[in-house]
Amino acid sequence: MDFSSDNSVGAAPAILEALSAASTGSATSYGGDALSERVRQRFCDLFEREVAVLLLPTGTAANGLALAQFTPSYGAILCHETSHAHTSECAAPEFFTGGAKLIQLKGAGGKLTGRHIAAAVKAYGDHRPHTAPLAALTLTQASELGTVYAPGDLAETCAAARDAGLKVHMDGARFANAMATLRCTPAEATWRAGVDALTFGATKNGAIAAEALIFFDPADAKDVAFRQKRAGHLWSKHRFLAAQMDAYLDDDLWLALAARANRTAQRLADGLARLPGVRLPYPTQANEVFAELPAHLADALQSAGALFYPWEEDLSGDGCTLYRFVASFETCDSEVDEAIAVLTKAARPNMEQTPAHV
Amino acid sequence: MDFSSDNSVGAAPAILEALSAASTGSATSYGGDALSERVRQRFCDLFEREVAVLLLPTGTAANGLALAQFTPSYGAILCHETSHAHTSECAAPEFFTGGAKLIQLKGAGGKLTGRHIAAAVKAYGDHRPHTAPLAALTLTQASELGTVYAPGDLAETCAAARDAGLKVHMDGARFANAMATLRCTPAEATWRAGVDALTFGATKNGAIAAEALIFFDPADAKDVAFRQKRAGHLWSKHRFLAAQMDAYLDDDLWLALAARANRTAQRLADGLARLPGVRLPYPTQANEVFAELPAHLADALQSAGALFYPWEEDLSGDGCTLYRFVASFETCDSEVDEAIAVLTKAARPNMEQTPAHV
Amino acid sequence: MDFSSDNSVGAAPAILEALSAASTGSATSYGGDALSERVRQRFCDLFEREVAVLLLPTGTAANGLALAQFTPSYGAILCHETSHAHTSECAAPEFFTGGAKLIQLKGAGGKLTGRHIAAAVKAYGDHRPHTAPLAALTLTQASELGTVYAPGDLAETCAAARDAGLKVHMDGARFANAMATLRCTPAEATWRAGVDALTFGATKNGAIAAEALIFFDPADAKDVAFRQKRAGHLWSKHRFLAAQMDAYLDDDLWLALAARANRTAQRLADGLARLPGVRLPYPTQANEVFAELPAHLADALQSAGALFYPWEEDLSGDGCTLYRFVASFETCDSEVDEAIAVLTKAARPNMEQTPAHV
Amino acid sequence: MDFSSDNSVGAAPAILEALSAASTGSATSYGGDALSERVRQRFCDLFEREVAVLLLPTGTAANGLALAQFTPSYGAILCHETSHAHTSECAAPEFFTGGAKLIQLKGAGGKLTGRHIAAAVKAYGDHRPHTAPLAALTLTQASELGTVYAPGDLAETCAAARDAGLKVHMDGARFANAMATLRCTPAEATWRAGVDALTFGATKNGAIAAEALIFFDPADAKDVAFRQKRAGHLWSKHRFLAAQMDAYLDDDLWLALAARANRTAQRLADGLARLPGVRLPYPTQANEVFAELPAHLADALQSAGALFYPWEEDLSGDGCTLYRFVASFETCDSEVDEAIAVLTKAARPNMEQTPAHV
Repeated sequence: MDFSSDNSVGAAPAILEALSAASTGSATSYGGDALSERVRQRFCDLFEREVAVLLLPTGTAANGLALAQFTPSYGAILCHETSHAHTSECAAPEFFTGGAKLIQLKGAGGKLTGRHIAAAVKAYGDHRPHTAPLAALTLTQASELGTVYAPGDLAETCAAARDAGLKVHMDGARFANAMATLRCTPAEATWRAGVDALTFGATKNGAIAAEALIFFDPADAKDVAFRQKRAGHLWSKHRFLAAQMDAYLDDDLWLALAARANRTAQRLADGLARLPGVRLPYPTQANEVFAELPAHLADALQSAGALFYPWEEDLSGDGCTLYRFVASFETCDSEVDEAIAVLTKAARPNMEQTPAHV
Repeated sequence: MDFSSDNSVGAAPAILEALSAASTGSATSYGGDALSERVRQRFCDLFEREVAVLLLPTGTAANGLALAQFTPSYGAILCHETSHAHTSECAAPEFFTGGAKLIQLKGAGGKLTGRHIAAAVKAYGDHRPHTAPLAALTLTQASELGTVYAPGDLAETCAAARDAGLKVHMDGARFANAMATLRCTPAEATWRAGVDALTFGATKNGAIAAEALIFFDPADAKDVAFRQKRAGHLWSKHRFLAAQMDAYLDDDLWLALAARANRTAQRLADGLARLPGVRLPYPTQANEVFAELPAHLADALQSAGALFYPWEEDLSGDGCTLYRFVASFETCDSEVDEAIAVLTKAARPNMEQTPAHV
Repeated sequence: MDFSSDNSVGAAPAILEALSAASTGSATSYGGDALSERVRQRFCDLFEREVAVLLLPTGTAANGLALAQFTPSYGAILCHETSHAHTSECAAPEFFTGGAKLIQLKGAGGKLTGRHIAAAVKAYGDHRPHTAPLAALTLTQASELGTVYAPGDLAETCAAARDAGLKVHMDGARFANAMATLRCTPAEATWRAGVDALTFGATKNGAIAAEALIFFDPADAKDVAFRQKRAGHLWSKHRFLAAQMDAYLDDDLWLALAARANRTAQRLADGLARLPGVRLPYPTQANEVFAELPAHLADALQSAGALFYPWEEDLSGDGCTLYRFVASFETCDSEVDEAIAVLTKAARPNMEQTPAHV
Repeated sequence: MDFSSDNSVGAAPAILEALSAASTGSATSYGGDALSERVRQRFCDLFEREVAVLLLPTGTAANGLALAQFTPSYGAILCHETSHAHTSECAAPEFFTGGAKLIQLKGAGGKLTGRHIAAAVKAYGDHRPHTAPLAALTLTQASELGTVYAPGDLAETCAAARDAGLKVHMDGARFANAMATLRCTPAEATWRAGVDALTFGATKNGAIAAEALIFFDPADAKDVAFRQKRAGHLWSKHRFLAAQMDAYLDDDLWLALAARANRTAQRLADGLARLPGVRLPYPTQANEVFAELPAHLADALQSAGALFYPWEEDLSGDGCTLYRFVASFETCDSEVDEAIAVLTKAARPNMEQTPAHV
């Protein structure tokens, strides 16, 4: 019962096989090989337009490089206060940009609406050169709270950013999970809605270490290779990044793996929602479930050996802690069922007493 | 009627005279001169302990260097969301630190309490190395909203910072104005309350361009000269910074100038407070007055040629805009009286109608 | 006949197999897994002391992080003018350190002696804070010109650095090739000779993307995890870096692969040295051969389809260009023999004429 | 007898008077005042074209900001190995650019010719993105060795830079001294010869702290105000920088002061050149004299209380040390004459013996 993270599993077999297959023979280093070009072309096809592609081993690198392309060292970036780039990358955006400023915004369910952006831009003001000029917005899809931007909402948010002259970056560490939920094309979920660059994640969803940074306007990628190189992110044996991504895109493996994780998460969410005293503050729209559990339930589940992390203490002011449960492409229905069984049993005394109390 | 800023006035005559006096003869460059040493000694006396002193032309430089001493490039800094270092220095802390992160906090009246700090530290969490480690807190005294930390309150805030392992920097661009209000010693208002470094401002209060960065523990200043030099902030003819500060400290000129500005600000605050429809959301504790004015009053005052800046639209939700009025050491009572007269006249129609309406 | 680079080959089968084997089951992310700990322990054993280990995908990252630990942002680093960190990493050391300065030194055969270091330190001077303080020296083993530091020579160089207060970093992208040549232990070739940190390369010698950054004094690694994380170099599925390194160290695979490449390079060097008009300016001590070829020989070899890069025009002033030939762990004797055959045939007209001319 | 530096003197009286005069009345802060605009206009007139002007307190700031405008954080800058920006600004160019690389070149007399630039560019190579792209060249006028580029030579150097796509920055900390020697217009000595930006120094030549950074194409100054602000180099009471520069330009005070210093330096150079055993390796073309003195002469001069710095030990291999003597606008002929008298007396024993030996 490992719901700790989608990082604790290994890689999809097809991706491991692709690494071995790619190893044969000589290939131009640093991305000049045929497989790297093939992956670039696949992304052009997937997104229905010419795009620039960088293959990178981590989302932190992809997010940092994207923001560095969009933001001068003296600029500022709008982000959600829960965004991974702000909370969990040890000031990587500040590092890659050379010292830009992150403005931390609030927004329900981990998302930012057009209204949030417009209000933030107005509150920020523009007293140049005293204010660091706003240059970019970074969004997360699926969000850190397991929610997903619908294309219409996303378009509204991006439009507000565009009105303020901001470029829009989307951190898609779980983009596959979002796409498995959305009924639209990758193009509609990104550039057609106003996204300028996307971190297209694979690591959490089956790769060993691979993310694609996609610039929807190749002009935005100008000189990014210098930044990539000096950050130590240009692989010499680049084929081994390309091979992972090639297998990941093959036959829509990326969507299949994500759909599986999403279904497992939904099964868990449904089970949790039926338990007394358990509350799910956000809809489960990807592969993460957030649930407020009373202490005795959390304890019981931990005692049974389940792995999951506390997210926030006492979110609703009733003493319950908010926990995060993540389903990976390998998480099994049986793990979910076992967890729900443990919780149901632990909740039973309450269930029996509850009628009397109510 | 120039209430626009304490930056729009010239310098105090004594400081200009000191520049001329210091110009005679040969002196060791880069701070090795006798006058520079004399100023350092004066700060040791003023603060009743051995301190390290850097003389700098701007507060932005002083704030940035202080924060760079306290915060590694991968660290994080707590600040008030209205702090000058965050809002008005074009990401200077991010630049001087080499990419540290600023965490923006809310707090009434431009101030942060111990409770604010403790809550912020808890919310920030500590998932190293994913979270950038919290390293410093920067406070502003007098605050950006014209309020002043009493030593007891300050001590509480600093204690909370210390509990979290943070160094405390105080941006004292208007430290003199705060001290002219507080009934305590400079030592009590700083290191005895837990402050580790102080930007001791002079520019807004009579110098041409001079701020002292004071490290209360000289060990905290280790190697800061390298940072100062590479930022272009080590003056070759250092005596000309020292001369300004020497004159500023002489006979407590700094306190006299600040007290004068504070009195003028208080006169303005008192006059504004008596006007119908005008609200002062923060107490006037230094040389800045914040007042919400209905549009017709603001218009009348502007039409009369007064200079003052809007600060925030519709703070209280009644359509009034919040304006900032700053008194400098040169602002005259007559300017204040003229402004109040203009406003009183403009308010009169209202005053006559008001009884009927109430 | 691919002598272009040791980056153009794939990975060693044992390393690919290790990736697949490591993929099974759940593992703590970000390096908290058992395999990562096992690799750390193996490095302690290999170097006969407690060491701190970072696993990274590129040498540029390892070099940059090592230098950032040793050099403040306002410091300076001594390097050979041909060092990869200076010439081929797009200012990565400047990036990772936050703006340190690289001082470029000359030294025969790509190496720096104790005398070079002492002279450079003296010439650099020490006019603090005007001079950026010298903080580190970076050496390359095997060097960029295919030569190897003997432990005695290395100790002399390191001693001169230590005398000047410098930490010593060794870029060992081809450390295995050096060790396959040297008759000493890894400890003798590094920390016993005065090296503080080593980039222990695997990528060029059989991995897909893996380098170990070894700090011989674990205290030198303090807080490096923050730098690693913010640079996007902390892998979530860290086991996949560990697996590569584990297989690489297993049964001394690293030495076996390097020895093979070295032997192939030596075979090529011997063949080239026998050709008339060909000069090898540096001894072939690792897996790179540098040879000055007259144009007709270079042309003949290229026409036959061999891949190799020009390194420097007219090094010796006789119109010959210096070329670099690299043997990888996969390069075959037959490739070497074919190249020598092509060159011998192309050189024959000269050979026949030579006697008459001499 | 203070020949230590042109930084050890005070300010010119006219500049001190201008500070006092500028202090009266209210003025827009941060450079929006009339005096600042007047100075900008004067520079347009002086250089016979529309220019962008930044006023800054130090040359390090001006050099750093100029190079940051021309060089991306991942770029490289060519400089002379003796250039102040490289040797004496504690890695300020690396800081202001956000981590660019400085390539250190040799050139006789502190100058770089077109041939030097072309050779350096070729040797540097262009293996993008592995090589940090060359972006700028910085020259020093007058040079660090007291020599001056003639417009024709300068044009040749700049042309070589332009051929390689480099912008040219001129560090003119002693530009006035160069102009007092050259028989050409400021325009001919700068942009007409191919210079893109100039640090126009005043501090060493009579100001308290003032340098102008001139961009000859105002488009090159785009967004530089952000960099200036975040580095703490935008003065709030900007009139006090403008006042210094205004007085400095008034009636060609800058040229008069520099001409005086140059004449004094020449008087010293002439005296030194007549002394036996003394060698002047570089022509005295500005206000600095470099002389190799045997130990007994240097000792005698120091014993007499003269201040001057050793520059390089044993430049010519005969045991003599190279010393630097600087004449400021305040240095008197009597100081020079006294120094020469001391040296002549100390040299007399030699002079008497010399004939017999020769």
